[in-house]
Amino acid sequence: MSYTPAFQDIAHLAHAEIYTPKIEESAAFFKNILGLHESGRTENSVYLRAWGDYAVHTLQLTSAKTSGMGHMAWRTRSAAVLENMVAYLQANGVAGEWREPEFGQGRAFRFATPDNHPMEIFYDIEKFKSVGDQIPGYKNLPQRFSPHGIAPKRLDHINLLAQDVTACREFFNKMLGLRVTEQIIFDGGAEMGGWLAATIKSYDIAFTKDRSSAHARFHHLTYAMDSREDVLRAADILTENGTFIETGPHKHTIGQTFFLYFYEPGGNRFEIGSGGYLIFDPDWKPVVWNEQERKKGQAWGLQTVSTFHTYGTPPVEE
Amino acid sequence: MSYTPAFQDIAHLAHAEIYTPKIEESAAFFKNILGLHESGRTENSVYLRAWGDYAVHTLQLTSAKTSGMGHMAWRTRSAAVLENMVAYLQANGVAGEWREPEFGQGRAFRFATPDNHPMEIFYDIEKFKSVGDQIPGYKNLPQRFSPHGIAPKRLDHINLLAQDVTACREFFNKMLGLRVTEQIIFDGGAEMGGWLAATIKSYDIAFTKDRSSAHARFHHLTYAMDSREDVLRAADILTENGTFIETGPHKHTIGQTFFLYFYEPGGNRFEIGSGGYLIFDPDWKPVVWNEQERKKGQAWGLQTVSTFHTYGTPPVEE
Amino acid sequence: MSYTPAFQDIAHLAHAEIYTPKIEESAAFFKNILGLHESGRTENSVYLRAWGDYAVHTLQLTSAKTSGMGHMAWRTRSAAVLENMVAYLQANGVAGEWREPEFGQGRAFRFATPDNHPMEIFYDIEKFKSVGDQIPGYKNLPQRFSPHGIAPKRLDHINLLAQDVTACREFFNKMLGLRVTEQIIFDGGAEMGGWLAATIKSYDIAFTKDRSSAHARFHHLTYAMDSREDVLRAADILTENGTFIETGPHKHTIGQTFFLYFYEPGGNRFEIGSGGYLIFDPDWKPVVWNEQERKKGQAWGLQTVSTFHTYGTPPVEE
Amino acid sequence: MSYTPAFQDIAHLAHAEIYTPKIEESAAFFKNILGLHESGRTENSVYLRAWGDYAVHTLQLTSAKTSGMGHMAWRTRSAAVLENMVAYLQANGVAGEWREPEFGQGRAFRFATPDNHPMEIFYDIEKFKSVGDQIPGYKNLPQRFSPHGIAPKRLDHINLLAQDVTACREFFNKMLGLRVTEQIIFDGGAEMGGWLAATIKSYDIAFTKDRSSAHARFHHLTYAMDSREDVLRAADILTENGTFIETGPHKHTIGQTFFLYFYEPGGNRFEIGSGGYLIFDPDWKPVVWNEQERKKGQAWGLQTVSTFHTYGTPPVEE
Repeated sequence: MSYTPAFQDIAHLAHAEIYTPKIEESAAFFKNILGLHESGRTENSVYLRAWGDYAVHTLQLTSAKTSGMGHMAWRTRSAAVLENMVAYLQANGVAGEWREPEFGQGRAFRFATPDNHPMEIFYDIEKFKSVGDQIPGYKNLPQRFSPHGIAPKRLDHINLLAQDVTACREFFNKMLGLRVTEQIIFDGGAEMGGWLAATIKSYDIAFTKDRSSAHARFHHLTYAMDSREDVLRAADILTENGTFIETGPHKHTIGQTFFLYFYEPGGNRFEIGSGGYLIFDPDWKPVVWNEQERKKGQAWGLQTVSTFHTYGTPPVEE
Repeated sequence: MSYTPAFQDIAHLAHAEIYTPKIEESAAFFKNILGLHESGRTENSVYLRAWGDYAVHTLQLTSAKTSGMGHMAWRTRSAAVLENMVAYLQANGVAGEWREPEFGQGRAFRFATPDNHPMEIFYDIEKFKSVGDQIPGYKNLPQRFSPHGIAPKRLDHINLLAQDVTACREFFNKMLGLRVTEQIIFDGGAEMGGWLAATIKSYDIAFTKDRSSAHARFHHLTYAMDSREDVLRAADILTENGTFIETGPHKHTIGQTFFLYFYEPGGNRFEIGSGGYLIFDPDWKPVVWNEQERKKGQAWGLQTVSTFHTYGTPPVEE
Repeated sequence: MSYTPAFQDIAHLAHAEIYTPKIEESAAFFKNILGLHESGRTENSVYLRAWGDYAVHTLQLTSAKTSGMGHMAWRTRSAAVLENMVAYLQANGVAGEWREPEFGQGRAFRFATPDNHPMEIFYDIEKFKSVGDQIPGYKNLPQRFSPHGIAPKRLDHINLLAQDVTACREFFNKMLGLRVTEQIIFDGGAEMGGWLAATIKSYDIAFTKDRSSAHARFHHLTYAMDSREDVLRAADILTENGTFIETGPHKHTIGQTFFLYFYEPGGNRFEIGSGGYLIFDPDWKPVVWNEQERKKGQAWGLQTVSTFHTYGTPPVEE
Repeated sequence: MSYTPAFQDIAHLAHAEIYTPKIEESAAFFKNILGLHESGRTENSVYLRAWGDYAVHTLQLTSAKTSGMGHMAWRTRSAAVLENMVAYLQANGVAGEWREPEFGQGRAFRFATPDNHPMEIFYDIEKFKSVGDQIPGYKNLPQRFSPHGIAPKRLDHINLLAQDVTACREFFNKMLGLRVTEQIIFDGGAEMGGWLAATIKSYDIAFTKDRSSAHARFHHLTYAMDSREDVLRAADILTENGTFIETGPHKHTIGQTFFLYFYEPGGNRFEIGSGGYLIFDPDWKPVVWNEQERKKGQAWGLQTVSTFHTYGTPPVEE
């Protein structure tokens, strides 16, 4: 087979399934405070989307004993690419299995990252169709803007903890065609973080070093807003509603994104973000940050809060 | 009596009563789209306030046969100032009458501007007390920020049409102590607009020349937001909900405010605004704009839409 | 040959050459008021870039008898794609010629759009290397942010007038692989505008109907900023420096971009813009706007200024 | 004498004299990075103002052996108020002396706060007159907006350290008529901070408890910008130019202001801020924050950096 995964063969991060021990509290939070929209429910899951997401869901909340990520899913740019990519994965020793169509998506191939995070690739997707007073006058948007709660615009990216960042970064680069945009490499050569993009965005997924001994932990999922003012407004909404803000709003040096991290009622970390840069140069070389540079903290000097380096879901048992 | 009205003896614009032939539609619009809060109702009126207003109401919607302004009201800085100012008005030939306490305010003195707009001055006011999930963590704000609809922060200013701008401007300056901040004086000397402030803001009330033969017409009432991004966001909300935007968002040269004008369901013009400048100089001399300068349009060259010069409420019968 | 141009084979709009009869005034304007940086000069041209552009130039100002566009240039995603695309163009009857390397770029293939706009595709590019106090601490940006003048971040898109919008739109779609994102099709079927993207942005080039009889006219070139606040700030800078603002700041319904149009000293229209949407859906279907919808004006109801439909450069001789 | 200082008898904070052991580096920083304008020099001082300040200076940098505040100055609302207030101060045992006119101001009465900070009150002031290309088209602004560096709009407020916050707060309230807007009172009753306003702003001066044994120390001086986006932009400019940012951008719960603190080359802390609230209620009661509430950190949970509580200028000798 002559197929090799190329940049942009993965079209975009499609959705993530997040476990929560408090499904009703989590769902109420995402609907009332965050302002996401519920698209449907199954026995154990609630499906949600932002007003600007074109798919029927970008977040699947699933009732579970603990927090953490059930799986994440990526959409390929075509049905043919999906078949080719699965064949390529299998030819390169990546075990996996096809799964039947589920809520919002057609058949999908499920496999695992080198750190064992469950993930899927698929092509067939159910698109959101607005009805009634959701129908936008701005026909180039999937839904009328809904000014309720934080109201982020769309799913943006995911961040996962991993024991071997290099292995995960190489896996996404070589097996799925993502572009490596930035890296943290400490003195001695340990890769502490790797950022990759399926698109011309500065990143769609990041892997950072898990400082515990756990595998397959989830760091955060991010919804994007159009302006930094929106993120500052979100901070007030979260604060006034008693949601714990772990850190931010502040700016990441890496990716140039404006961030705000908080924990949803089920214990998972989420981010409201804005900005970043677009990479037009097809020859982009990864920007590598060393240990000394990272000690400077975030963009404007804020030292990274320690839990940001240690807290992941599910929590590590002690 | 030695009292003469001084700058800042009027503390602020307190509220306006606006007539609407569609009281329920107007009330629903202000609550659902604008995001104001209902404080109470009487037989013919609905009382509303923005989340950042300290008083129980800043807007009184009153059911009437036509649109227009029922009255506007100003709060004095003390009870003593109220008594002195009423005495001063009466001593200077301004007819008026004391009215009994009403919803949200104590006894008030009602009189008319030289163009016959009904207005009141009063001191005793009912302040908003937040309860339950309205109670803010930010104790220096009257209410928890309510992220629903446009959600302006507070009442800002009022604009009235008048046959004799000079008379109205002088009345507010001499009888009530407001500071004249800016003026439009055309070639030949006709004063086409006058802006006055009860505070260090660039204005709290404006009078502009009524080009019809009517008296006592209402031009617009403005609610303020903290950022221009908020006003741009408001424009999308209004557009997507089918509200007619007359002009804006754009920037006024006069007052340096960022504006957005629309008509509420009862036909009255309202504004969502932001910005302006603060006047710290106690010797401020009014800035006078001539006819040539006004022909340049608004700050960035947008020609003022013709209805802005002609439409007022109630409409003129033909 | 089996090659067919695919979406994203053109990596991005690289630069445009703009003619000006006032080269020194134009250059001074772009440097002092806009805040672009001069990268070099040749006998007849001045080469400029924004602080966030990775290439040594995105704008070439060339001294000429009149205003208008000299040519525009696109970078392919690889050297191989360049060769394949040129072969494909030639095989499909598109005449053109290879040109020797010039300032900032390697050899390029020059040809014409169906409306006769000169254009080039190329791959080899000279990248900007910051020196001295231009070197950014934010290593993922090409240059330290230079807070002087308007200071846009990067080149964004180009808009050209054409007699046959359909022909141009199809040419860019089929010959160069660009995605058609939005269209205006009037009653009777005339295509009045077509927007296409080389990337996941809402557009990188637009063609709009030339209402004069001229060919190959230039409508505008756009530099992007990160926020709408930046565009509002730019409006003040232009106004205070006496630059004619044709229209804006306001929001386009099409593309969802926030715009500000002005004429540089040589008479060419430029835009400072922000925003837009990203298209993640690989199956995107063009959004088609009809005549009735376009009569509503821009996003918030501002009627499109008439010169926007008629003014292009070079001007039409009468 | 019947005069008692009333709210708004002090019109505004006029300027501050800041000592710096590196006068040329400090002056260059304020001009090139901050974007202030030099109005003049005397033997030991450089006088600066922001583009929106109406006076010829709001900052006097004076060459000295150490950092710290030389004095601060307030303008009264009239010449008569100045005379009355001085008489009132003297009648109430406040020692002081009249000083001859200096750069930018007429005669002034100099005295000391209870913590011994030197301060002046005066009325006659030299106003800035724009010339040449500084002349604004926006005639209601003192100068054309100068898009160079951070370019704050105007002086906003000052913060001083004091051994006895209560004494200083009462002094400003009773002797100068400022309104007490907010306070921090710890368990046991110690007043750790007091905020006062000469205007309807949320504050113009703050006193916070000096945790060293020093007197008359300076905490920071603040220049204001119109938007939070401006403050975020300032953070990038400072960061890219190697200026130490102590904390922020973030939001204060107290005063609702958006802050960014940094140290200028002479070692003094300055702030770039935006926002806050306006107090229209003439009956405003101070908002009191207790120890528990302050432990929550700033508005969105950022713990106050320890140096913010300990660093003042001049530094304490050990």
